[in-house]
Amino acid sequence: MTVRIGVIGTGMIGRDHTRRINQVLSGAEVVALSDYSPDAARAVQADLAPGAKLHDRGEDLIASADVDAVLVCSTGATHEAYVLAAIAAGKPVFCEKPLATTAEAALRIVEAEAAHGRRLVQVGFMRRYDAGYRMLKQVVDRQIGTPLMVHAAHRNQSVPESYLTPMAIHDTLIHEIDVLRWLLDDDYVSAQVVFPRKSRHAHARLADPQIVLLETKKGVRIDVEVFVNCQYGYDIQCQVVGEEGLANLPEPMTIAMRREARLQSDILVDWKQRFIDSYDVELADFIQAAARGTAAGPTAWDGYVAAITSDACVEAQESGRIVPISLPARPAHYD
Amino acid sequence: MTVRIGVIGTGMIGRDHTRRINQVLSGAEVVALSDYSPDAARAVQADLAPGAKLHDRGEDLIASADVDAVLVCSTGATHEAYVLAAIAAGKPVFCEKPLATTAEAALRIVEAEAAHGRRLVQVGFMRRYDAGYRMLKQVVDRQIGTPLMVHAAHRNQSVPESYLTPMAIHDTLIHEIDVLRWLLDDDYVSAQVVFPRKSRHAHARLADPQIVLLETKKGVRIDVEVFVNCQYGYDIQCQVVGEEGLANLPEPMTIAMRREARLQSDILVDWKQRFIDSYDVELADFIQAAARGTAAGPTAWDGYVAAITSDACVEAQESGRIVPISLPARPAHYD
Amino acid sequence: MTVRIGVIGTGMIGRDHTRRINQVLSGAEVVALSDYSPDAARAVQADLAPGAKLHDRGEDLIASADVDAVLVCSTGATHEAYVLAAIAAGKPVFCEKPLATTAEAALRIVEAEAAHGRRLVQVGFMRRYDAGYRMLKQVVDRQIGTPLMVHAAHRNQSVPESYLTPMAIHDTLIHEIDVLRWLLDDDYVSAQVVFPRKSRHAHARLADPQIVLLETKKGVRIDVEVFVNCQYGYDIQCQVVGEEGLANLPEPMTIAMRREARLQSDILVDWKQRFIDSYDVELADFIQAAARGTAAGPTAWDGYVAAITSDACVEAQESGRIVPISLPARPAHYD
Amino acid sequence: MTVRIGVIGTGMIGRDHTRRINQVLSGAEVVALSDYSPDAARAVQADLAPGAKLHDRGEDLIASADVDAVLVCSTGATHEAYVLAAIAAGKPVFCEKPLATTAEAALRIVEAEAAHGRRLVQVGFMRRYDAGYRMLKQVVDRQIGTPLMVHAAHRNQSVPESYLTPMAIHDTLIHEIDVLRWLLDDDYVSAQVVFPRKSRHAHARLADPQIVLLETKKGVRIDVEVFVNCQYGYDIQCQVVGEEGLANLPEPMTIAMRREARLQSDILVDWKQRFIDSYDVELADFIQAAARGTAAGPTAWDGYVAAITSDACVEAQESGRIVPISLPARPAHYD
Repeated sequence: MTVRIGVIGTGMIGRDHTRRINQVLSGAEVVALSDYSPDAARAVQADLAPGAKLHDRGEDLIASADVDAVLVCSTGATHEAYVLAAIAAGKPVFCEKPLATTAEAALRIVEAEAAHGRRLVQVGFMRRYDAGYRMLKQVVDRQIGTPLMVHAAHRNQSVPESYLTPMAIHDTLIHEIDVLRWLLDDDYVSAQVVFPRKSRHAHARLADPQIVLLETKKGVRIDVEVFVNCQYGYDIQCQVVGEEGLANLPEPMTIAMRREARLQSDILVDWKQRFIDSYDVELADFIQAAARGTAAGPTAWDGYVAAITSDACVEAQESGRIVPISLPARPAHYD
Repeated sequence: MTVRIGVIGTGMIGRDHTRRINQVLSGAEVVALSDYSPDAARAVQADLAPGAKLHDRGEDLIASADVDAVLVCSTGATHEAYVLAAIAAGKPVFCEKPLATTAEAALRIVEAEAAHGRRLVQVGFMRRYDAGYRMLKQVVDRQIGTPLMVHAAHRNQSVPESYLTPMAIHDTLIHEIDVLRWLLDDDYVSAQVVFPRKSRHAHARLADPQIVLLETKKGVRIDVEVFVNCQYGYDIQCQVVGEEGLANLPEPMTIAMRREARLQSDILVDWKQRFIDSYDVELADFIQAAARGTAAGPTAWDGYVAAITSDACVEAQESGRIVPISLPARPAHYD
Repeated sequence: MTVRIGVIGTGMIGRDHTRRINQVLSGAEVVALSDYSPDAARAVQADLAPGAKLHDRGEDLIASADVDAVLVCSTGATHEAYVLAAIAAGKPVFCEKPLATTAEAALRIVEAEAAHGRRLVQVGFMRRYDAGYRMLKQVVDRQIGTPLMVHAAHRNQSVPESYLTPMAIHDTLIHEIDVLRWLLDDDYVSAQVVFPRKSRHAHARLADPQIVLLETKKGVRIDVEVFVNCQYGYDIQCQVVGEEGLANLPEPMTIAMRREARLQSDILVDWKQRFIDSYDVELADFIQAAARGTAAGPTAWDGYVAAITSDACVEAQESGRIVPISLPARPAHYD
Repeated sequence: MTVRIGVIGTGMIGRDHTRRINQVLSGAEVVALSDYSPDAARAVQADLAPGAKLHDRGEDLIASADVDAVLVCSTGATHEAYVLAAIAAGKPVFCEKPLATTAEAALRIVEAEAAHGRRLVQVGFMRRYDAGYRMLKQVVDRQIGTPLMVHAAHRNQSVPESYLTPMAIHDTLIHEIDVLRWLLDDDYVSAQVVFPRKSRHAHARLADPQIVLLETKKGVRIDVEVFVNCQYGYDIQCQVVGEEGLANLPEPMTIAMRREARLQSDILVDWKQRFIDSYDVELADFIQAAARGTAAGPTAWDGYVAAITSDACVEAQESGRIVPISLPARPAHYD
């Protein structure tokens, strides 16, 4: 059976997912497209999905009888409405991060899905599908004892002037917020942010770097360096220290060269390359679950927790204090 | 358009390619199966390709109007006949290594394809599709100057008693023979084999390890350690030394751990894991070319050259001498 | 000219320095020994310094006309009196850490040396003499831009029950406190300590691990993981992140092995091996300066700053707060 | 007791050893100097050994009653005569490599020492004192099973036009010839040399790179790449493959940096830095043995075997054949 997929939002990521479904992965086909800009949708149709039907409104695409499952790749502010509509239609929906722009909106999705009684939502936290993180999780679960600390770093070569201090949380740290919870099977109870000396490469309205200190329910202490003008490349580091040993996230595969008095290997500069394989695995997982009428992977609840935690981190940026994080009870159907 | 594929030979590799085509990759479907053992074909049909038609004889599968392209995964001795039949039928054919069991047979395939006038054959040298070798080739082509030497190693944890001295060439070195030609864009002119002290782990009828010394037309000197009872794991090493620097094939991704007074990371023990991703890329390439009625990747000529070179290496094993290697002119349609 | 050295305290470190001076290094000789236990002094005399004179009291050794320079290797509580006596006698004195057991006592030494008008005191912070830290300092000074952050770790395999929570500062972090000031050419302005989940390997009266957060005058943020029951070995890590790049302290030299399905190399378990070469360099520096009647390397002021900073860290352990650190003006003769 | 040393030959290495003895190491003093150029000897006297006596002739220095032991650092052609004179005088003598310029001359030294009845000669093969090779030997002896193969490389950034093809053996490979015998506790039985494509950076009268293939009595096969215009730095590699695993010589300690899209660390370009610490250990060993009236470390026999083996390698360069190597029985007093 081929899962018939409708894609809402045909910008960079929507286009790329369309290519992935139609040209790389088995088991699904993009049969419908919709975008705020009809021309954008038409271009993707022409290039990648000639048989897809165009819809002016995402809601119509969701309602279409030809569509089995939905990808929401539109701008963040529109996510809540589309995801709620898909749940109402009983269709599996893959929603790019963020699930919603506020914690309240994310909670409404959680509650709608709970009312529906079956999982339908997958949030686009692709790092959980990265081969490196998956290997790390296996080692953390089995070989280094109870985790006690995590030392992490999220570094970008540079960011534009439009990237402001809170975006270090919402756009950057958000990935560590999700993946570290998953890695540790744990939740956060407090957040603190400290600001080192500012890099001369950071624009006026951005404090860069930042160090975010998170504490979990089980007592794990996490420090994440967020440094988005580090100049040297895109670099994701994660070290877990346990009672019996420690383990590191692997570096991306590179060629070690000896040249010009240096042992050297390239560091990625384009963040899109870093987790490129995990998008394939992520969507294959969505397609498999959608074929059974449900969803897998990161849940709406995960999206909600990420929103709550992000809000606390931004408050910690602003206040300079240790901000407590508390969550309502997790609905039973996410267990 | 979906390429309709027939698979001849449904043992381990035929089964795995069927899974790959039907469950992982886009663009093709296994529509026919044939095996020496009808039960084996039936089992793969049941597990992975319920819609596929069973053929008692591979020749019938090749001739079937429902089949657009053929995978030859049967035992080596049958390859020549099936590949020649596919060429005669004008159908793209992917043939697992070896292309044929003698150089003469491989040359007959080359000539048949030349007579047909268009490429139809892809040989299953999957290392050319490995991400690590591809990165290495880019670096070799651009960053270390003219290649002068290659130091390589092909190590297996252990082999059964049925593995005899010449198999170090036919079953093991064969991969280096192909991939190093491709990496260097060169051909071999001589081979020599030296035998180090034999490992106590090698069986009576196997000289293990061996060191194969190859010389290329451009003067590159290659040494390949073949050690198939190395005990510690499956390990493929390749270092290219050029006029301006050197480059190494990347290690497979692993987690670096600190535990029990050791900085440590796992080495693969199962060879099937080492190039597992490259099989996907290899078949995706075959499918794309087959959709256009032709073939890509390693050619019948490459299969022929590998056979000629293997024969010279076995002669070098037996004689202890430096054995010259000469090739006929390459047919123009492989340029 | 041979510098005639008297050693006060002939325990493990005093014995080792005597061996170093008499059997390894050029330019000095141990001519006098003193210990709280005359038997201990006699044993070192017999084994390593047959020509040395024994003194019952350290004060007499310092006063002896045969002694040009003094090593204070006795228990910490006695350091202040011996160092002050050496200053009063105008003799260069090498004092093992701590310079004194309180910041006030350390300040008295600073003031006595200032009154004397010339440097006479070297404190035994041997890491500044470690080849790895010296290479790191060169890179930090020249190649990675202005330092913004330091991520460090100080891990011991295990500690005895007598090791209590404040000793994580006084006995362990003390080395980072000194060497990071030197590395960054900076001073501390605040300290905070957070306590991760406690390791099951830590004794009842020890919080282990701990993370110490330090802030410097120039705004550098430092995090040091102190984990003294890490089980896997003795491991010192230091990463400096600057505006243009980052640099890591080298690992100790080891053999990389491939064995039993692991790429592996040994991690030290004995802390005494980690900086063993730096003791030689440290004492050679002392001998050279002493031959000119003065002292080099880490100063009494450095010993005082380490004491002040340690006190703030212990206060931060106890209070859970961010504790400010302030220093008096540095006496001019340390510039 | 201080060993009184006379140094013959005060060029770069003689000067450096004088500095080492007088300023770094314990237990010896340079009391006499001699050089073909009296001005050179006078300059070293003035800079490093003001109390040393100058001798016009090395023979007089050796005969002087003030001299306990001798360092021969003069040009190679003079070594035999000075070493024989030292043996005749019954004085320990450290001779820089080569022990002599012909195998016959080296054998005369072996026989003279045997006639004397006690070891007096140490040859300056400093790699045996390198911490990395010593660690490697421990691992080879205990952890990887019986050695079967060695893959080695000796690379220099570049050499002057005066460096001709045979010097790849006499000046470069000579170090591997000695250190690999010691590492494996074995001797050579044959040598072969193959010439890869010549680097464009090699001068007209130098074949560069070369690969030397050695076979040992125990059946170990060794390949050494000698590449003295490799451009990228001075690089010494050594991998030993045993029946149970493999081990690599450590890289020199360096700082790993992340900068400009590269993970990078410096490679040495100056060969003098690579084994600089081993010269200290080597001479300390000589001093300790000389204090007992004898010699330690690499023997005259080792110097002789290196000469025999070098001659075979040069013959292999010229003939293109596999050249057998045979040795007389080792005199009993070297056991």
